[in-house]
Amino acid sequence: MAKTNPGRFFEDYQVGQVLHHAVPRTVKMGERALYHALYPARHALYSSDQFAQACGLPFSPLDDMVAFHVVFGKTVPDVSLNAVANLGYAEGRWLAPVWPGDTLRSESEVIGLKQNSNGKTGVVYVRTRGMNQHDEVVMEYCRWVMVRKSNLDAPAPETVVPDLAKVVPADQLVLPQGLDFTGYDFTLAGEPHRLGDYEIGEKIDHVDGVTIEEAEHMLATRLWQNTAKVHFDATFRPDGQRLIYGGHVISMARALSFNGLANAQMVVGLNGGAHANPCFAGDTVKAWSEVLDKAETIAPGVGAIRLRLVATKGGEPFALKGDDGKYLPEVLLDLDYWALMPV
Amino acid sequence: MAKTNPGRFFEDYQVGQVLHHAVPRTVKMGERALYHALYPARHALYSSDQFAQACGLPFSPLDDMVAFHVVFGKTVPDVSLNAVANLGYAEGRWLAPVWPGDTLRSESEVIGLKQNSNGKTGVVYVRTRGMNQHDEVVMEYCRWVMVRKSNLDAPAPETVVPDLAKVVPADQLVLPQGLDFTGYDFTLAGEPHRLGDYEIGEKIDHVDGVTIEEAEHMLATRLWQNTAKVHFDATFRPDGQRLIYGGHVISMARALSFNGLANAQMVVGLNGGAHANPCFAGDTVKAWSEVLDKAETIAPGVGAIRLRLVATKGGEPFALKGDDGKYLPEVLLDLDYWALMPV
Amino acid sequence: MAKTNPGRFFEDYQVGQVLHHAVPRTVKMGERALYHALYPARHALYSSDQFAQACGLPFSPLDDMVAFHVVFGKTVPDVSLNAVANLGYAEGRWLAPVWPGDTLRSESEVIGLKQNSNGKTGVVYVRTRGMNQHDEVVMEYCRWVMVRKSNLDAPAPETVVPDLAKVVPADQLVLPQGLDFTGYDFTLAGEPHRLGDYEIGEKIDHVDGVTIEEAEHMLATRLWQNTAKVHFDATFRPDGQRLIYGGHVISMARALSFNGLANAQMVVGLNGGAHANPCFAGDTVKAWSEVLDKAETIAPGVGAIRLRLVATKGGEPFALKGDDGKYLPEVLLDLDYWALMPV
Repeated sequence: MAKTNPGRFFEDYQVGQVLHHAVPRTVKMGERALYHALYPARHALYSSDQFAQACGLPFSPLDDMVAFHVVFGKTVPDVSLNAVANLGYAEGRWLAPVWPGDTLRSESEVIGLKQNSNGKTGVVYVRTRGMNQHDEVVMEYCRWVMVRKSNLDAPAPETVVPDLAKVVPADQLVLPQGLDFTGYDFTLAGEPHRLGDYEIGEKIDHVDGVTIEEAEHMLATRLWQNTAKVHFDATFRPDGQRLIYGGHVISMARALSFNGLANAQMVVGLNGGAHANPCFAGDTVKAWSEVLDKAETIAPGVGAIRLRLVATKGGEPFALKGDDGKYLPEVLLDLDYWALMPV
Repeated sequence: MAKTNPGRFFEDYQVGQVLHHAVPRTVKMGERALYHALYPARHALYSSDQFAQACGLPFSPLDDMVAFHVVFGKTVPDVSLNAVANLGYAEGRWLAPVWPGDTLRSESEVIGLKQNSNGKTGVVYVRTRGMNQHDEVVMEYCRWVMVRKSNLDAPAPETVVPDLAKVVPADQLVLPQGLDFTGYDFTLAGEPHRLGDYEIGEKIDHVDGVTIEEAEHMLATRLWQNTAKVHFDATFRPDGQRLIYGGHVISMARALSFNGLANAQMVVGLNGGAHANPCFAGDTVKAWSEVLDKAETIAPGVGAIRLRLVATKGGEPFALKGDDGKYLPEVLLDLDYWALMPV
Repeated sequence: MAKTNPGRFFEDYQVGQVLHHAVPRTVKMGERALYHALYPARHALYSSDQFAQACGLPFSPLDDMVAFHVVFGKTVPDVSLNAVANLGYAEGRWLAPVWPGDTLRSESEVIGLKQNSNGKTGVVYVRTRGMNQHDEVVMEYCRWVMVRKSNLDAPAPETVVPDLAKVVPADQLVLPQGLDFTGYDFTLAGEPHRLGDYEIGEKIDHVDGVTIEEAEHMLATRLWQNTAKVHFDATFRPDGQRLIYGGHVISMARALSFNGLANAQMVVGLNGGAHANPCFAGDTVKAWSEVLDKAETIAPGVGAIRLRLVATKGGEPFALKGDDGKYLPEVLLDLDYWALMPV
């Protein structure tokens, strides 16, 4: 009886199937400190208990991306061990803060399947939910990945492509209970700009850059218990390079965006995202943002800003796609998300 | 008056001598998180407070190897600063879990001495005990090292070679109070295999590999306050390489063994071990295991599995020794331990 | 409206100006563990809650250098983003321990300005204070930096050079409440030497060395939320090297000084300091100390020792300056500080 996990292949998925992912994880103060060591994260609400309390929260939650990474990491052995590519995200929402001491687990429902015409791969759509120890859903998102078939003779399943929203509507964003930005301290937060100071279409070059090291992306990826070989084993790819977990680039870019978006405090919605090109150690990651939309919320003093966050490894700021409509080779990430900002 | 520690030489040890090692260490949540960042550790009992509670423990203890590393690290200035080689381990037992907030210290008794025929070195046998702040012994083990003489004219001591057990008998393993695997959740733990599913003699290739970085092994080794120069100072060895702490390889291999041994939850006995060849940054560590024995315990639903854990840096799985009986050059570690597993 | 922080230039400072630095930071157990992973820190009072309690403290505080780094890191965006050089420190005092759970913020008062004769740069003197969540000052120090002018036509300000003490007088050192070394355990602390065993003028070679890695200095520098580009972005300097944060060298040297100064437990005064030469990844940092002075304190069993701490990257121990009076090229740091030691 083989004891190791070979991962699932395309023919192993059925629409409606629910995958209960293994190894729940209690996250505490150590994970919080490591997040600050791994990324230049400075958003005040995640840095200071007192700042968070002045915003109506009991204390400082773990960074929203910690929730994403932990929830995502658990899905890897069941969803993406034999994945060829991570194709997209949609309908992502953060539904409750993750507090130090919470234990997260996750499960995914298969919501779509489409075999590719080559007969060798197919696209698997899942909706993943992360739950805390009280069985509250703390975040959810849809993801679709291209997965290899193991048995090429397995019949193609009925094609089911889910109808996913291009954007999470602002009125479906969920705000942390008690959140109140009416007493927001812009000096402590680091920048004076409120929602009204940003224009739709405005672009911001976040200026700073971080050169990526092997040790750092591996520490980060392991911390989220994401154990995909390709991130750790230099002998796995023919080129001897370790592919950096796409979430490492997301967190790096989000942290770099502090410089110009210090008041885009909480990430509450993930509208979409593409890992445009692979990132390797030695690349210097920079970031720029574009304001895509703005909206009101029902929480006092709290608005929502929809942002495109682009991570690059060189090139000019604000360059995204070539004349052929394809991402430029230096673009690493194109993420579309909602954040909360004082109005 | 010289202020720095020159370490002890072979002639400085006497049988019966007790060495009280310095610098007690309080371990908390930060050490727990760092362990998960440094190693691909996923055993559920150490990852989730709720999983640990469902197994009868108050919450998730620190990884058993944290106890070993901290206890071991304290002995370095007194035992192995002038050691030429770490020769072996025996009679190791984990006697109580280490909880976040515990403070560990350690002491070693010299239990054997044997000068080598060259007159320049000798073997020192110690039994080391790690205690918590309540003076409970949390773990103990024997270790023997080859140590240089400083004064070659010092007379050879009477040879005393302790009679050490080849294997800790299963009935002498100590189980954490309250441990109960009758409600064990195999889905959350990540694999369905129980003790009955493993055969004595069965071998498991753990498949995954991790390429080692200088920054990571130094972070780990410092965290355990093991300050042997050879791990940190690239100018110390003539080849300019930093020798990786053998315990880093132990933790890496044990974490990799999750894939195939996810339910070998707690390490409770250390029967023996050899650091077969040195490990350096750039090596890709893989691991395989062999089931050596199985036993019952008195705790409900809890069995014991005796495992050989082999770490390699290349080569074929399951290759261990050459025709000459010596370890193959790619073998890093050959460890013999007892773990607890649901029956 | 530009959203990113361009930093202040020389003409943007006025004497008497108070800069309220952004992003308060709650430090907890995770920061403590990371400090022990990043530096070979073994001073017992910061390693063990029980040892700290035996010295009259409620439990183990965060390392004094954590306070310094966090307080310093917050000043970077307002003081040194356009700095050409960090010129000196004076009148530094640690005024209260930082406990896990404390939230630190900092503010700086401009206490001096002097335009350089080239008209392109000037020296800015600030007194920085770090406060905890109870508005207690936990540490203060003066620093002066050379800052570029942006508008070369801006008139030179009136020259004000503050009169800073060469040494903090011993009777102005502030000791943690309750500190008592009368029951000090030298065995647990790691060395037998008390204040009376050190002679003024005595020099100690700390022997051990640590080769610096990019990943480690970046983890450390980010942990203190110091985001100066030059430490992170390999494309920033023409030589493609990342300049290592001077504070990383301070902490490394201080931790190395354990070997010979294990009982110089708490750092309470910073008399002066020079970052003599830049440090880059690959350098092997070693350290030596010189006893500059000794003093009594009013706390039972507690004396003060004034130390020169020199960090080097090669060369002979105790070499500091050449015949020209300039620091030798291998000297990284020359720090003058007060520590507390059992009498």
